[in-house]
Amino acid sequence: MTQKRVVYLDHSASTPVDPRVMDVMLPYFTDVYGNASSSHRFGRKAEQAIEDAREKMAAVLNCKSSEIVFTSGGSESDNMALRGVAWHLREHGGHPKLVTMPLEHSAVGKTVDQLHDVMAFEQAIVPVDRFGSVDSAAFEQICADGAGLASIIYANNEVGTIEPIADLARIAHQHGALFHTDAVQGAGQLSLDVQTLAVDLMSLSAHKFYGPKGVGALYIRDGIELVPTQSGGSHENGRRAGTHNTPLIVGMAYALELAYAEIEAHTAHYQTMRDQLIHGVLSGVKNAQLTGHPEQRLPSHASFIFEGIDSNLLLMHLDVKGIAASGGSACKTGNPEPSNVLMALGYNEQEAMGGLRLTVGRQTTTDDIEYTIHALQDVVERLYNLVRV
Amino acid sequence: MTQKRVVYLDHSASTPVDPRVMDVMLPYFTDVYGNASSSHRFGRKAEQAIEDAREKMAAVLNCKSSEIVFTSGGSESDNMALRGVAWHLREHGGHPKLVTMPLEHSAVGKTVDQLHDVMAFEQAIVPVDRFGSVDSAAFEQICADGAGLASIIYANNEVGTIEPIADLARIAHQHGALFHTDAVQGAGQLSLDVQTLAVDLMSLSAHKFYGPKGVGALYIRDGIELVPTQSGGSHENGRRAGTHNTPLIVGMAYALELAYAEIEAHTAHYQTMRDQLIHGVLSGVKNAQLTGHPEQRLPSHASFIFEGIDSNLLLMHLDVKGIAASGGSACKTGNPEPSNVLMALGYNEQEAMGGLRLTVGRQTTTDDIEYTIHALQDVVERLYNLVRV
Repeated sequence: MTQKRVVYLDHSASTPVDPRVMDVMLPYFTDVYGNASSSHRFGRKAEQAIEDAREKMAAVLNCKSSEIVFTSGGSESDNMALRGVAWHLREHGGHPKLVTMPLEHSAVGKTVDQLHDVMAFEQAIVPVDRFGSVDSAAFEQICADGAGLASIIYANNEVGTIEPIADLARIAHQHGALFHTDAVQGAGQLSLDVQTLAVDLMSLSAHKFYGPKGVGALYIRDGIELVPTQSGGSHENGRRAGTHNTPLIVGMAYALELAYAEIEAHTAHYQTMRDQLIHGVLSGVKNAQLTGHPEQRLPSHASFIFEGIDSNLLLMHLDVKGIAASGGSACKTGNPEPSNVLMALGYNEQEAMGGLRLTVGRQTTTDDIEYTIHALQDVVERLYNLVRV
Repeated sequence: MTQKRVVYLDHSASTPVDPRVMDVMLPYFTDVYGNASSSHRFGRKAEQAIEDAREKMAAVLNCKSSEIVFTSGGSESDNMALRGVAWHLREHGGHPKLVTMPLEHSAVGKTVDQLHDVMAFEQAIVPVDRFGSVDSAAFEQICADGAGLASIIYANNEVGTIEPIADLARIAHQHGALFHTDAVQGAGQLSLDVQTLAVDLMSLSAHKFYGPKGVGALYIRDGIELVPTQSGGSHENGRRAGTHNTPLIVGMAYALELAYAEIEAHTAHYQTMRDQLIHGVLSGVKNAQLTGHPEQRLPSHASFIFEGIDSNLLLMHLDVKGIAASGGSACKTGNPEPSNVLMALGYNEQEAMGGLRLTVGRQTTTDDIEYTIHALQDVVERLYNLVRV
């Protein structure tokens, strides 16, 4: 019997801050504390740090630094993109239809719901197949019927499926629609080159790539205008009001730079750990089924269902064994809803109650994976026995 | 001649993080890094820290912890309050008029402009007197004519005038309007007791009271509903989506707790420094006039005009002498606009070009003040000589 250990396999929910990133952030809390909008030396030092950070991020995204807007995280970036474009379309006679798919993060999904329900925009949702891949033909038809903005997630947070963003963006553009992608889960693992991806807007969040929580970015291609969703001061060229969060912006940029300087080593490691995990679970744990795409999935991401087992119960038992996992997105124990994402993939309600997401990280070891597979065998076996009684 | 020194007199623009606050934040970057929405031990530790922080803040505000929503700062809090209430009023047949005054922070002023110009809400602006105090009778008349929400700044950022919030809130309530205040500049110096203030919503930003940048809060009185402006996950009881920024939230709460535990000592010190400064400048610097209210002003806040002198030029010369000051709000050098705030107080354009704000802090010393008065005498004298030529 393996010794009990603590295994964090929820890197899609959040990652620790890289110690190298901490080191560069620290002086901006207590020493270089000026407001970056101030004209004096304290302000100028902060402003310089922010513009350096913007350059660093632009290098990874292959864009101009002026095309990057700093935000408080992925949810704000998504909201800014969708609300900002939608209202700008309305102001300038653009098409009022917003196109998404069922596997969007809720910051996109719920925002489009509100834009539709409360603010009278139109909404269309493209179907996906069993693996979570967008139906390109349906997407093209919806765009051809007229659309202002399409937003398709780069890689889904719950089942890890990667979408063909560049192809979808081109389809949208052919029919005159703008294209946004939520790249929050893909960052640090997939290319963020906005020229290759051909996107008009792209959302990022630092705490998914070993940067701090509470800071993110929205890429906005030159020439695309938005009605500001956080209005006030003229920060970020009038696109996002609010005193710059100098330490976290500096930290995010350095975290992104590091993640992409080291991307090959990290993703190779993730993939090895993930494949060991998937193989071990599918071959050794009762009733395990892989969800999401078998190949087109995030290197760090494994997801399963165990039909008839309540995901929350499974998570609790794994937690007792020291394993931090997730039911899908970072959900709360006690929420007895089946997963919308799994339902959209065509799983039935009972299957959609039993989702398990395990996401590896830089520190994950072979021993962690072995321990997790054995723990899962044990827990799933016991839960099926309970169900039987 | 006094030795040259570095004097930071721009505490209204931003304050350094209290070292005691840094200490409590640090573990949440690298050790307790779980997503507070996750159900495992990593998530629960983060969630516990956030709920403890909420309790701490509620104690200072004299409210329930459930009435506090964490945001990314003052600008977001203002936007959330105004947009959220306005759209909720529209959805439920409330009065569509939003009432502000000319000395609002731009996060309120520009947001109401957008709600009016782009989203078709009504707007009314209450006049102020020469000191920046709201005309209560005019405010009452506007509310009596019908209004959904009034938003009046607690203490102005540019001239430091404190408004009689409790009186104004009661007037608004008598006529069925909700009342929001931007308390960003007042926090750490004025009471934030929301029961005494009688406000329905109140915005705060941590970096004004020796907490970190990039985090703030919105107090929302029980029973008041908002259409979410940052939608997505069900964080903050569905009122504000986005992964919790655990370290900064923990830091903000502790900074607020410290600021109010020590408020008497701090404000007494601010007031001594400020009065020494105001006395020295008015009696010793050519043409100096105090702006804002002579008594009802923030303890830390001194503001002046020097008619005919360009504020930006003055700031540059002070910066060369090591003094960090501001023209009003944290503005950019090179912006040649007269101050809207000073114009609203009835100053002419030439006067409104010459605003100077000096805001003292915990570390400010008598020597700093003496040095600043002498530097100002010298710089103002020289600039008047230049103007004459």
